[in-house]
Parts: sequence; structure tokens; C-alpha cells
Amino acid sequence: MSKEGPERTSSRATLMYAAMVAGAVALFVIIKTIGRFLSAPEQAGPVRFGRLANQASMSELAHVLMALVVIIVLARLLGAAFKRVHQPAVIGEVIAGIALGPSLLGRIAPAASKFILPGTVAPYLSMISSVGVILYMFLVGMELDTQLLRRKTHASVAISHASIITPFLLGSVLALWLYPRFSSRDVPFTVFAMFMGVSMSVTAFPVLARILTDRGMTKTKLGAIALACAAVDDVTAWCLFALVVSIAAAKPGRVLLTVGLTAFFIFCIFKFVQPAMKWLVQKRAREKKTTQGTMVIVFAALLLSALATDAIGIHALFGAFLLGAVIPHDSALARDVKAKINDVVLVLLLPAFFAFTGMRTQIGLVKGTSEWLACGLIILVASLGKFGGSSVAARITGLSWRQSASLGILMNTRGLMELIVLNVALDLGALQPTLFTMLVLMAVVTTIATTPVLHALEGETEEEAELQHA
Amino acid sequence: MSKEGPERTSSRATLMYAAMVAGAVALFVIIKTIGRFLSAPEQAGPVRFGRLANQASMSELAHVLMALVVIIVLARLLGAAFKRVHQPAVIGEVIAGIALGPSLLGRIAPAASKFILPGTVAPYLSMISSVGVILYMFLVGMELDTQLLRRKTHASVAISHASIITPFLLGSVLALWLYPRFSSRDVPFTVFAMFMGVSMSVTAFPVLARILTDRGMTKTKLGAIALACAAVDDVTAWCLFALVVSIAAAKPGRVLLTVGLTAFFIFCIFKFVQPAMKWLVQKRAREKKTTQGTMVIVFAALLLSALATDAIGIHALFGAFLLGAVIPHDSALARDVKAKINDVVLVLLLPAFFAFTGMRTQIGLVKGTSEWLACGLIILVASLGKFGGSSVAARITGLSWRQSASLGILMNTRGLMELIVLNVALDLGALQPTLFTMLVLMAVVTTIATTPVLHALEGETEEEAELQHA
Repeated sequence: MSKEGPERTSSRATLMYAAMVAGAVALFVIIKTIGRFLSAPEQAGPVRFGRLANQASMSELAHVLMALVVIIVLARLLGAAFKRVHQPAVIGEVIAGIALGPSLLGRIAPAASKFILPGTVAPYLSMISSVGVILYMFLVGMELDTQLLRRKTHASVAISHASIITPFLLGSVLALWLYPRFSSRDVPFTVFAMFMGVSMSVTAFPVLARILTDRGMTKTKLGAIALACAAVDDVTAWCLFALVVSIAAAKPGRVLLTVGLTAFFIFCIFKFVQPAMKWLVQKRAREKKTTQGTMVIVFAALLLSALATDAIGIHALFGAFLLGAVIPHDSALARDVKAKINDVVLVLLLPAFFAFTGMRTQIGLVKGTSEWLACGLIILVASLGKFGGSSVAARITGLSWRQSASLGILMNTRGLMELIVLNVALDLGALQPTLFTMLVLMAVVTTIATTPVLHALEGETEEEAELQHA
Repeated sequence: MSKEGPERTSSRATLMYAAMVAGAVALFVIIKTIGRFLSAPEQAGPVRFGRLANQASMSELAHVLMALVVIIVLARLLGAAFKRVHQPAVIGEVIAGIALGPSLLGRIAPAASKFILPGTVAPYLSMISSVGVILYMFLVGMELDTQLLRRKTHASVAISHASIITPFLLGSVLALWLYPRFSSRDVPFTVFAMFMGVSMSVTAFPVLARILTDRGMTKTKLGAIALACAAVDDVTAWCLFALVVSIAAAKPGRVLLTVGLTAFFIFCIFKFVQPAMKWLVQKRAREKKTTQGTMVIVFAALLLSALATDAIGIHALFGAFLLGAVIPHDSALARDVKAKINDVVLVLLLPAFFAFTGMRTQIGLVKGTSEWLACGLIILVASLGKFGGSSVAARITGLSWRQSASLGILMNTRGLMELIVLNVALDLGALQPTLFTMLVLMAVVTTIATTPVLHALEGETEEEAELQHA
């Protein structure tokens, strides 16, 4: 380009530009005029033009976007409000979901509820929340500290198994009373009793870990025992749940096949997938960063694993959890993968799960004193089983009564995990809507109860300590 | 705990544990036996128990997971293969989508195609790909270097507008010939011509930027001009496209309202949302990391913005793009948000878009010599308009012929952006499936052509340079 270029170019360009725009507009008008005399074939495509212009309602995409934004914002607000009163944020998020459903908004403003969460978005919300739960369980699996499982003492195994077996049995006993009242004739009693047992036995490891972190208890002896117990609990409860689901979902007479396939799948995960994940961890270490190629392998493995457990007849989330569990939780790979998906899952996808759960929770179905008493009984039995079972076992293995009680109340935290179990049971038809609602309430109440009770127990300990120092 | 505690505890725990398990099993058998005598109410829930056991087909979730894993893996493999021959990976991913659809797999193995991508997954795939495209356009907007727009010279504005206007007009002229042959009578000619014009005018900024990076050309003068032109192009083409969509989608007689609302929306974004984003950037700087609270605000703003443009009657992706554009592209916030969603979008969600596009691309619809000639004509006119328009304008503003030609071929890269435009047009019913397929082929061919032509042009330049040095 010559030296005087810029200025000459500039003025020339301006002129050219003006001419260009004017010419273009004129030319398009001519083309448009000619076009008027043309006629196109009648052949109709899959979509009639003007379909969008004529439809009065919003597009499905718009409804899904709106449902997401409402639930994301409300979940965050209530989560923050609950955090302020020293409650886990997840409780606020769950209550946000319930509030948007038929229980609250559907009752006080049915039109608003139908506008925000119309029936047409339910399948999409269900799909988004399924994907969200699969990714979440993968994250939970990845956070599972297998060291905690290996460093387990007989004490922690005994405590954690007691804290599964006691509520499971109490739940089954309660099932004897609930079955004739709140179940349906097409659900076999055994399946119903096992679901009741499992739903009483769940501990929310992530919520528990969060409470311990918030209270600075992770490094204390009690915190370490609680974490170890909850980790063992997690694995045991999910195995038990997988067994129950495989029994419930299998074609009649094929239960053994499903159980066998599940065992084979677990074998394959440890025999073939675990080494593959170790190789991936080394690949990550060599490349110094988690490349998109690595992410493709991780996502593909995750989807295949979820697909395999779904195909076997247990739920997709087991595969996701197992895959997460065989990725070493303290590896750079786990850290990177978590950083890449954590916020999308927790902020964008899980709220869809809360909204979907809320749509299915109908507090209005629980009617009259007797049904509310039944709901109270469920909460009582659940707490008795979980709190009682773990604290008695802890006392027997040598902890003080106070520490045992603290441990018991920690294990009674059910949080999000319980909701996942309940949704699967509802999907399978093993739970009826009324009982589903009661159990959701039980999950909320037991989780809310944890922090204040723990505070009271710990508070006393601190006072005691002060007295001793005095 | 006393000193001899551990051992005593251990043996006691083992005993307790064995007794516990044995007792539990016995107890459950008793409960189960009692349960046999119970009968539950007939009242049927929303889901009949055993529904899953009796249905032969896979669940919808399983189908969606399988479709995702197949497309993710195939897209990656073909992407890597195309990269090896110095092609943008996106071309391999697009071809993977087409291959899984009716064009290839549907023809050679209809059963496999139906198994991997059955009609029932289409709505879910469509929703996932919509969300993916919205997030992707947000990322593209966030990468938009507004500095490039501000530092624009008259030359780059003239080049980029010429590279929009020429293909737009040539596309409209071509529409005169295409309308009676490949359109449908219910589509007004004006809308058809405008869509043809826009689909010829698109430049894929991300693919162009990638090609320049791969060839180490970003810092060269040619690279800088190309980037600036593509940025201006991007903004202009999307404005034009928004205008066309608003005209096409508006209720008859309400075009002006839609255009007015769009202008008002853009005003609001710059007046209110841009300052809010600046505040968020400062918040990020203060807090030293992008918290989940910040992510909630970003996601909510993104969804609301997408929702607003969807409600106005133009597509949700415009809102997402605009929101991305008002987040400073070099801020720590933009970097963090990108790190948090980039891989989920590119690896997990966008492949769903490729698969969905592939399902709708039916190469079998293009029949006979005359239709293939029409397809060739479209490719010719598209390249002539884009390549010709930009290189002539570049030559007039003072670049050498060789540089002008390089710039022209770079601007002819359509990539993923073109597919987004085409899918919206198909959704609106403004394009028929046959023409859609031809335009998809045009996008693929023009994108593939870029690298070898550029290589030839640059290669010559290098040879020349060598000659001069000799």
C-alpha cells in the first residue's frame, strides 16, 4: 500500500459505502417487485409458514427457559435465606421447588402456577432434571473419599451399618401399617416395604459434609467418624437401593438376572473402567491440563455407564455414581472435571430437579388429622431409626452419649439424596402421590432439624468445657 | 474412651455386626410374611406399578443418553480426523451429525438409525440443542472483541459491509429462480428472498478466528483486518437476521411492533444491562473468584435475555448473543464463566445440535441432475457473493490482490453459524427440507474450501518471499 493510502482509502471507502447501501436497497426493492409475479409450488413442508405467527401461546422453549429462570432465582433466594439462619441452602432450594408447585403457588394463584410450570414443560423439565441428577451423582461419586472407606475402623462400619439396618427395619415395620392405607393394590408388599426401608435409611453425604465444614468440625474426631460413617452409609444405601430398584423394575421372574447383571456391571467397572480412569489421570498429569479430548472420554464414559445401569433395569444414576467413585477424588483430573461442570449442574440443572419434585409434591393431598398424624409418625419413625440406630451403636463402640447423639443427628440428614430416591420410587409406581408428599416432608423436616439439634448438643459441650476450665 | 478401648471395641463391634445382620434378615422375613395378609386400596396412582417391567422399549432417558454418547464420540472422531487434514474440527462434527441422520445411516442401516435416533428423542434433542445453541451464542457474544469494533477503520467497515451486501443481493437474485422451484406457496417471496440473502451473508467468526490461530495469522495485518471485518460482519449479519426473523415471525401487520420492540430491547441491554454487567465484573474483581452467586446472576440474566427476544418474536439466541456481547471479553468474569461452561457446551450440548441438524438434513431429497445443479449454483453464488464481495472491496481499499483473495476466502467460512440460521428458518417454515439440505451442503463446502484455498494463496506468498530473499 502507498504512503498516502489511509486518507485516500478513507474518503473513497465512505463514498463507496454510501453508494453501496443506497444501491443495495434499490436493488432489493426491484427484486422484491419481480418476485411478486412468481408463484411457488403447493408442496407443503413439515412446518406451515406462519405457524408461529398464528399460535397464541409461547413456544415450548420459552416456557422451559422461563421455568428455569424462575426456579433458579427463587431457589437461590430461599437458599440464601436459609443459610442466614444457619440451615443448609439445599433446604431453601427444595422449598422453592415445592412453593412453585401445586402445594403453594398452585393453590393461591393457579393461573400463575400454570403459566410458570404448565403441564407441557413437565417432560422437558423431567429430562433436564434427570440429566442434572445424573451429573450430580457423578460429582457426588467423584467426591467420595475411598480413603475414608479404606481407613474405616470396625467401629465406623458397625455404626454405619446399624444406622442403615435400624431405620430399614423400622421402615419395614411401619410399612405394615402404611401399606393398607397409602399404597396401591398393584404394588407387591415386599417392594413397598423395601422402598419404605430404604427411604428411611438414606443419609445425604454432601449435606452432612457441608454442615461439618460450616461448623469447622471436619478435623475433629466426631467429624472424622461422621464422614467415614456417611461414606460407608452412602455406598451401602445405594447398593441396597439398587437392589430394591432391580427387584421392583425387573420383569416378573427375572429379578435374579437383574441382580446378576448389576453385580457383573460393578465387576466391569472395577476391573476395566477403574484402570482406564487411572490412565486418564496420568494423561491429565502429563498434559498439565484437562483437554477437551479428555472431557469427551469422561462424558462418554459417564453416559455409557449411566446407560448401562439403565439398560440393566436399575436407574441411570447408579452408573453415574459408580463412575465418579472410580475417579480418584483428590486427582487433578477430578478437580478439573468438577470445576468444569459443578456450576452448570448446581446452578442451572439441579434447580430443575427441585422444580420437578415440587410439581409432584402435593401437600393438598395430605388431608385431615389422621393423615397428618401418619405424616408425623413417618417423621418420628425415620428419626428414631436413623438417629436412634446410629447413636446407640456409637455409644456401644465407646463414644460418649453426647458425641453419640451428635453423630446420630448428623446421620439423620437426608437432604437431596432422599428426594432422588423418592422420585425414582414414584417413577416406578412403587409410591403413591400422597405418601410421596409425606416422605418429601419427612426429608425436609429431618434435614432442617439437624443444625439446631447439633447446635444445642455442641453448645452444651462448649459450656461444659468452660466450666471445666473455670 | 479408655486405653484398651480399640481392641475391646473391635471384637464387640464384630459380634454386634454379625448379630445385627442376621437379626435384620430374620426380622425382615417376618415382616414380609405378615405383609402377605395385608391388602392395599385399589386407588390407582398416576403410574401403574410394573409399567416399566412390562414395557418392551427403552426409556426415553436411555434413548437420549444413547443418542448423546453416539454423537459425542462420532463428532469427536470425525472432528479429529478433519483436524489432521488441516480442516476445522467443526466440519467433522457437522458431518458426523449428517452421517447419523437419514442421509447416510438412515439409508444404509435404517434399523440402526431408528434405534440410535428414534423420532421420540427428537423433541428432547431439539430442546437440548436449543439450550446448547443459546449457551454457545452467549459464548460467541462474550468472545466478541468490542475493541475490534471500536478500532475499526473505514476500510474494515466498507469491506465487511460489502461482504454482507453483495452476497445478500446475489442471494435475493437467486431467490427469484429458487422460489418457484423449491419454496412453498404459503411463504411470501419477500421473506424467502431475505432468508436466502442472509444465509449467503453469514460468516462464522469462531471458525475464522480458529483458522487464523491455527495458521499463526492473528497478529499479521491480514489477520487483524479479517478479525475486525468478521466482528463487524457478525454484528451486522445478526442484526439483519433478527430483522428478517421478526418480519417472518410477526403476526401479519405487526412487523413494525416487532422491530420496535427489538430496538427497545437493544436499548435496554445497553442502558441497563451493560452497567449491571460492569458492576458484576467489579464484584468478581473484589471477590477474587466467580462465586456461585455471581453465576446465578449470569445464568438468570442470560435466560431472561433469551426469553425476552423469544417473547418479542425474534429468536432466543439473539438475546443470549447480546448479553454475551455486553460482558467485557477480556474481564476475569468472562474468563471464569467461559471456563465454567465452555466444555459442557462444546463437548456435551453442541453435538446434540449437530445430530438434530443431521436428522433434518436429507440428502436423499436432492434428486436428479437438475437439483444437484441447483445445489451447485447455490454454492457458486454464495462463494461469488461472499468471496467476490469482500475481496473486491478489500482491493479497492488498497490491499494487494493476493491479500484481498485471502481475506475473501476467510470471509466465505460459514461453519456453525450458517447451520443456526438455517435451523431457525426451517423452524419458521420459511425453508423447505430440500432447500434446507442444499444450504447445509453449501455451508459445509464453503467452510471446507477455506483452508486449502488459503493455503494455496499463502503458500504462493511464502514462495514469493523466498524468491525475493534469494
